Amino acid sequence: MIASAPASSANLGPGFDTLALALERYIEVEIEPASHLIVRSEGEGAGLSDNATHLAAKVAVDVAGHDRLAITVRSEIPVARGMGSSAALAVAAAAAAGSPDPLGVAARIDGHPDNAAASVVGGLTSACIIKGSVRVVRLPLDERLEFVVMIPERTLPTKSARQALPEQIGREDAIFNLGRMGMLLAGLADHRFLAKEATQDRLHQNYRIPLFPEAPDLLAALEAGGALAACWSGAGPSLLAICEPGTSEKVRLAAQAALEEMKVPGTAIAVKADHRGLVVGESARRLH
Amino acid sequence: MIASAPASSANLGPGFDTLALALERYIEVEIEPASHLIVRSEGEGAGLSDNATHLAAKVAVDVAGHDRLAITVRSEIPVARGMGSSAALAVAAAAAAGSPDPLGVAARIDGHPDNAAASVVGGLTSACIIKGSVRVVRLPLDERLEFVVMIPERTLPTKSARQALPEQIGREDAIFNLGRMGMLLAGLADHRFLAKEATQDRLHQNYRIPLFPEAPDLLAALEAGGALAACWSGAGPSLLAICEPGTSEKVRLAAQAALEEMKVPGTAIAVKADHRGLVVGESARRLH
Repeated sequence: MIASAPASSANLGPGFDTLALALERYIEVEIEPASHLIVRSEGEGAGLSDNATHLAAKVAVDVAGHDRLAITVRSEIPVARGMGSSAALAVAAAAAAGSPDPLGVAARIDGHPDNAAASVVGGLTSACIIKGSVRVVRLPLDERLEFVVMIPERTLPTKSARQALPEQIGREDAIFNLGRMGMLLAGLADHRFLAKEATQDRLHQNYRIPLFPEAPDLLAALEAGGALAACWSGAGPSLLAICEPGTSEKVRLAAQAALEEMKVPGTAIAVKADHRGLVVGESARRLH
Repeated sequence: MIASAPASSANLGPGFDTLALALERYIEVEIEPASHLIVRSEGEGAGLSDNATHLAAKVAVDVAGHDRLAITVRSEIPVARGMGSSAALAVAAAAAAGSPDPLGVAARIDGHPDNAAASVVGGLTSACIIKGSVRVVRLPLDERLEFVVMIPERTLPTKSARQALPEQIGREDAIFNLGRMGMLLAGLADHRFLAKEATQDRLHQNYRIPLFPEAPDLLAALEAGGALAACWSGAGPSLLAICEPGTSEKVRLAAQAALEEMKVPGTAIAVKADHRGLVVGESARRLH
């Protein structure tokens, strides 16, 4: 069986641990019967751990109940950059292994239900946990929006990104995020209403700056380069720019120039949102 | 000049101090030149303070810069029940006095920007304060949704309702509300996706129960009576039920029965959302 799932940007500023946006970069997992476990990987993350410790193997063995599997992973999604590569991998591996609930499996084993939701459903999603299960809704997304992802050549494991966050916060900061999330969802539903303040956040982005000190200046460069709004992609270090129709190439060039000017090795890509999410059985053709 | 504005339910569960929904109950303010200040009031709140301390007088005098005004207020919105009567009054009074910015005036003098946003714009709104100014967006609202408001015959001033809230909260509680708000906005955009968990909240509703101990049982009765979801309306004591198309009368009867069974004097009304917001110069006909 073969399955593919899109990358995703989670959080989107105010929607911490909740919102995610599926992006047109894919990971594909193919699983066939074998006499013993074989793991092969191509593309992004290739060769990092081609054995039973590979997330695709953990997920597939969990679903199948045995390890007599040949697993092939092909990926366009950079690893540990905040683009949801592990969630997309877990979702695709669970589906390719025959799971009827790839979202639940991915959330349980990989632990990123927000990214996994976007990888399964596509588009703009909101996820939360209700009585131990992931509940996902799809929110209105203006199909004309374009996006630029700035991808620094450094990894930022989600775990250390999360340890930087305080356990207690002021009530006013929680209200701040609720208000910005309302603005953001209105702007993502109709780009004409998107304002740069819509991605402001007080729950995570500022606490993570010590892990990536150039982030504020790079976000400012994305806005100066023409983005409607910009935010961290997941726990970073990738940064996401939300762009008006027809402007993503201009913003991408500004992003690339900003990386060079600030001497941050990395790349910037222009992408559209993915609207299909997980696809089982016909996905090979989607890899670019 | 004459202006009218709708009632509103703010918060809607998770969207504390942010979301509000305009409802088809109106307040109307008429202002004419006079030799000295005259305040008349009819309907809900009539005669409570027909003098310079009336909110309509404070707002109109602020806007006009003098008090040579005859102000008539006609209202269908119960006072101090959590239905945004003061915000609707402030908005209508500011507009009737000729203000070009009724929202800003109402937020400054009355202090409820979330309710005022819905009273000005109509429909489902999200408000936040950016650099001291109220910023409002309108969010997708399924026009087929119906609503029931349960209005206990007791007042619950917003000030004491707010003093019950803690200044610091757990980060997980903030995330909880963001996740529920995502669910709620998806369900208000399309009622088929509305689940009862979408109005759950950890920032305000539970802290306010001591001020209105019957609230949890009444909310449960609204859901048992057929509501898709139920929540406090603003700071209470009114409670709002969000209902599937064609079910509001059934839910209203269940609400009325629950009030009687629990010996809470009050009434329940079925209403639709208002989609027009503030109307200047032609509003007299809208009062029921």
